[in-house]
Amino acid sequence: MAVKIMTKPAQMQKMSQAWKRQGRRVVLVPTMGALHQGHLALIRRAKKLGDRVVVSSYVNPAQFNSGRDLKKYPRCAAADAALVRRAGADVLFRPAGLYAKNSSTWVEETDCSRGRCGDRRPGHFRGVATVVAKLFHLVQPGAAVFGEKDHQQCLVIERMTRDLHFPVRIVRHPTLRERDGLPLSSRNLRLSPRNRKWAGAWAQALRQAASLGPRRALGAYRKLLRPLRSVRPEYVELVKGNLHAAAWIGGVRLIDHRRCGGSR
Amino acid sequence: MAVKIMTKPAQMQKMSQAWKRQGRRVVLVPTMGALHQGHLALIRRAKKLGDRVVVSSYVNPAQFNSGRDLKKYPRCAAADAALVRRAGADVLFRPAGLYAKNSSTWVEETDCSRGRCGDRRPGHFRGVATVVAKLFHLVQPGAAVFGEKDHQQCLVIERMTRDLHFPVRIVRHPTLRERDGLPLSSRNLRLSPRNRKWAGAWAQALRQAASLGPRRALGAYRKLLRPLRSVRPEYVELVKGNLHAAAWIGGVRLIDHRRCGGSR
Repeated sequence: MAVKIMTKPAQMQKMSQAWKRQGRRVVLVPTMGALHQGHLALIRRAKKLGDRVVVSSYVNPAQFNSGRDLKKYPRCAAADAALVRRAGADVLFRPAGLYAKNSSTWVEETDCSRGRCGDRRPGHFRGVATVVAKLFHLVQPGAAVFGEKDHQQCLVIERMTRDLHFPVRIVRHPTLRERDGLPLSSRNLRLSPRNRKWAGAWAQALRQAASLGPRRALGAYRKLLRPLRSVRPEYVELVKGNLHAAAWIGGVRLIDHRRCGGSR
Repeated sequence: MAVKIMTKPAQMQKMSQAWKRQGRRVVLVPTMGALHQGHLALIRRAKKLGDRVVVSSYVNPAQFNSGRDLKKYPRCAAADAALVRRAGADVLFRPAGLYAKNSSTWVEETDCSRGRCGDRRPGHFRGVATVVAKLFHLVQPGAAVFGEKDHQQCLVIERMTRDLHFPVRIVRHPTLRERDGLPLSSRNLRLSPRNRKWAGAWAQALRQAASLGPRRALGAYRKLLRPLRSVRPEYVELVKGNLHAAAWIGGVRLIDHRRCGGSR
């Protein structure tokens, strides 16, 4: 199966406008490249939702807090293209840039983007909301699929879509995990084998803490983390029955969340 | 000719999506109601640009700085509907509200919205950009017509449209004026007969000052305004060869701009 690689925003928009006239249901899977099985699951889900699937791959500078993190974000264009082709998407949209030099317009969500990652990464969700708005205008999807791993991102995008009346259905797809429970993430590629093990232990601690129920989860998480000396906890928060956490391992920031089980 | 009045955002969006599938070229004329000949000119222009014309009428609370100004903004629904019908638009879109109670998403342009009205009306252009983004998503026009009287608004909308890749062509329509040179504006309705005369004198002063050329315009404007004791000048700025001014007359805020003539 052939996948068309597009790099020009205007060309992408023209294509999607032609599809709309033909009555096609376009589905977007926004990514930052460095695709893994989690992305593949999103693409497969997208194929069920419509008849034209666009995978965008753009490392959005506006959502990185440090130039170092942006620079270190994994990039693997050839492997990505092969993966997207195999998954059966129609277009891989890989724009060189989505911000003009004197770009000055931002989309900002001011409620869901508070707390958790929003507080620790100032401007991050503004960058996310802005780039997703751009992609929605360029690809004009009827639906877009986001991984639930980035839970707060899902909330921000859902709220933005509702508030601005985007004609787009936001679909959340469940988190995929490695055998040891670590959620799939492009950032995992940056972990050394040793730190990869610590990351697994961190994910286990989160799962175990959540399983004890909302009343005990926070305390248990902190306690379980104590022996994990290579894991630097960033935040842990209980939001609507879910335990959310972020942690740094060997200079790599990881996030995860688990539904709290057990009794109150 | 019949004009369809729509009040439900979802209904409007469904209509415009059906039009898109039929290959119609939809043109939007966003207004806050209280329509006058200036709006009629925008609607006539819109009819030339496409084959479906939507006039939106929504007094956007987010772009008013004071509840008093919002409350005093003229409203005349029946007359508006008659005017829109006569002008030959297809739909008058008059939503009851475009902000959910917990609405939290804003579109903000941070460059063109500086200076002039942007500095004097904090949040005004954020409100404008946000509501125009909503309208673009609901009406999905290929083009939208804006009056050039609101010059800075045109700049903000043009920049936002480019930055966020809206598939919309922004068309500016020249300012229409009364015989004495006062630009048509819904706010003129709020002027007493006496203040209406002062407003004309103010518009004359701006025109005369601009005619003296960019080097002398600012000084001349200030001097010409001195005898106009009911006119309280707010700002006057020279931007790219245009003289822009705002003034208060009897509690009503008016804006205008004129191209500077003469030699440097």
